[in-house]
Amino acid sequence: MKLPLLVAAAALLIGAAPAAKLTPNDIVAQSPASAWKAIDPNDLLVMDLARGGRVIIQLAPQFAPVHVANIRALARGNYWDGATIYRLQDNYVAQWGLNDSDKGFPADVVAKPPAEYTRSVKGLSITPLGSADPYAAGAGFVNGWPMAFDRKAGWADLTHCYGTVGVGRDLSPDTGTGGELYAVIGHAPRQLDRNIAIVGRVVEGIDRLSSLPRGTEALGFYKDKAQYVPIASIRLASDMPAADRPSFEVMDTGSRTFANYLRLRANRHDDFYVRPAGGVDVCNVQVPVRRKG
Amino acid sequence: MKLPLLVAAAALLIGAAPAAKLTPNDIVAQSPASAWKAIDPNDLLVMDLARGGRVIIQLAPQFAPVHVANIRALARGNYWDGATIYRLQDNYVAQWGLNDSDKGFPADVVAKPPAEYTRSVKGLSITPLGSADPYAAGAGFVNGWPMAFDRKAGWADLTHCYGTVGVGRDLSPDTGTGGELYAVIGHAPRQLDRNIAIVGRVVEGIDRLSSLPRGTEALGFYKDKAQYVPIASIRLASDMPAADRPSFEVMDTGSRTFANYLRLRANRHDDFYVRPAGGVDVCNVQVPVRRKG
Repeated sequence: MKLPLLVAAAALLIGAAPAAKLTPNDIVAQSPASAWKAIDPNDLLVMDLARGGRVIIQLAPQFAPVHVANIRALARGNYWDGATIYRLQDNYVAQWGLNDSDKGFPADVVAKPPAEYTRSVKGLSITPLGSADPYAAGAGFVNGWPMAFDRKAGWADLTHCYGTVGVGRDLSPDTGTGGELYAVIGHAPRQLDRNIAIVGRVVEGIDRLSSLPRGTEALGFYKDKAQYVPIASIRLASDMPAADRPSFEVMDTGSRTFANYLRLRANRHDDFYVRPAGGVDVCNVQVPVRRKG
Repeated sequence: MKLPLLVAAAALLIGAAPAAKLTPNDIVAQSPASAWKAIDPNDLLVMDLARGGRVIIQLAPQFAPVHVANIRALARGNYWDGATIYRLQDNYVAQWGLNDSDKGFPADVVAKPPAEYTRSVKGLSITPLGSADPYAAGAGFVNGWPMAFDRKAGWADLTHCYGTVGVGRDLSPDTGTGGELYAVIGHAPRQLDRNIAIVGRVVEGIDRLSSLPRGTEALGFYKDKAQYVPIASIRLASDMPAADRPSFEVMDTGSRTFANYLRLRANRHDDFYVRPAGGVDVCNVQVPVRRKG
């Protein structure tokens, strides 16, 4: 029963004097179970590297349904057998797939998905960031995801943050199938927002990608195939034996707990800090995700 | 004589139709020599790793004079003999120095430097970012450095971006001597702005830090000393033999070339992009720095 502690913390935060000196991590540690939502195992993509290490990705079917359906079909159809990480560009992305292979897609893959770069802002319940966004009229959080939006223009989109996973593509109007994916391993490349399909985010093991050697060719491609990092398997958690299946939950970004967390991310007042920032960028909030149970 | 090309490009950019489709890198490639300023070798700190690899840092004496003077004194006094990289926290910092050593400082090191976290905005010639900043009233560039500022409150500060180098410290009012330094290897931790002394930025070899294995202890400290990454030497370029001395230049952020570069960083319109962002955050501009000659 951690609820009384949380209520006390919230009361202190709303008060004028920041006497509590809680950190954002304290808010996570003290959060009630009701502040979390389980992630569907059909939305978890598990990538095992051949030399050890696992990277787990939460898919975002509500924002890029056709691309995510493709990714599930590619995983189930064993498309990625023999796949590698072949691109590591510092402060930008790690990218994997079959690269220049002419391997055919499983039958249920949509070869030319729609753009799915933005969606209508209508009907979205947005928890506002509360700070200015350099890239859009507004920013905030929807169902656990960081988003930018423009109510006047009518659009909303997922934002490229550290750990965001998107679909590699050639020049427009190609939107990519989902066969080649990348994860952001540096400062948020928000210029890609609304220009590429975002399909999810790494929820565990991003350091397995971010600590890989950088490629020395243009755009961070590895020069020699011997440098490619082999991938043992890419599976949906829902297709794994129940006993082996990883299980995650994400903080409900509509909860009071998240509101407190967000306020502290923008106003660090614990002992280390002399001056709370009074603002935060959407990619520096880092929606809490954790192992369940 | 690349000047005519640049003038043509500028004319096209100012015009309504973005016919040129130049990338920010094109602007750098076409820039005239007059758009660059040499970096003083007394402002270049050269860190050689014992197992190979070099990291080069540009110091910022105009913003943190006492801390930078300390760093020069530490380098000249061989304080860092036996130093290691002992902390690698994913999406945050790499940190190096002597850690818990009780080694004494060279005589000319100021043991308790002033905070040097901000300076007065008065007298600074700022090239404005032109986009909102989530952390401050304004952001822009001064003498090649990204800065945030608040004219009403009167302060300006260097911003924590990818590659920024700052001085590790304990709890305030300690400001650190400069003996323990960190470099940002992830998304800009802007909450540290105005809370810590920024002394420079990595201008070459940040990937030598960002690709190191992450530490598994709290805050990314390496668990075993065997994991520490040994540093062979940390020297000022000005103390190296002239023939070995690396030489760099930084784009003049007051130049017309930088104005064009900045405009394109905020409005990518080359073939890959469907929708230019119309904005950019100060840490995603990445002031061009390159080898000279």
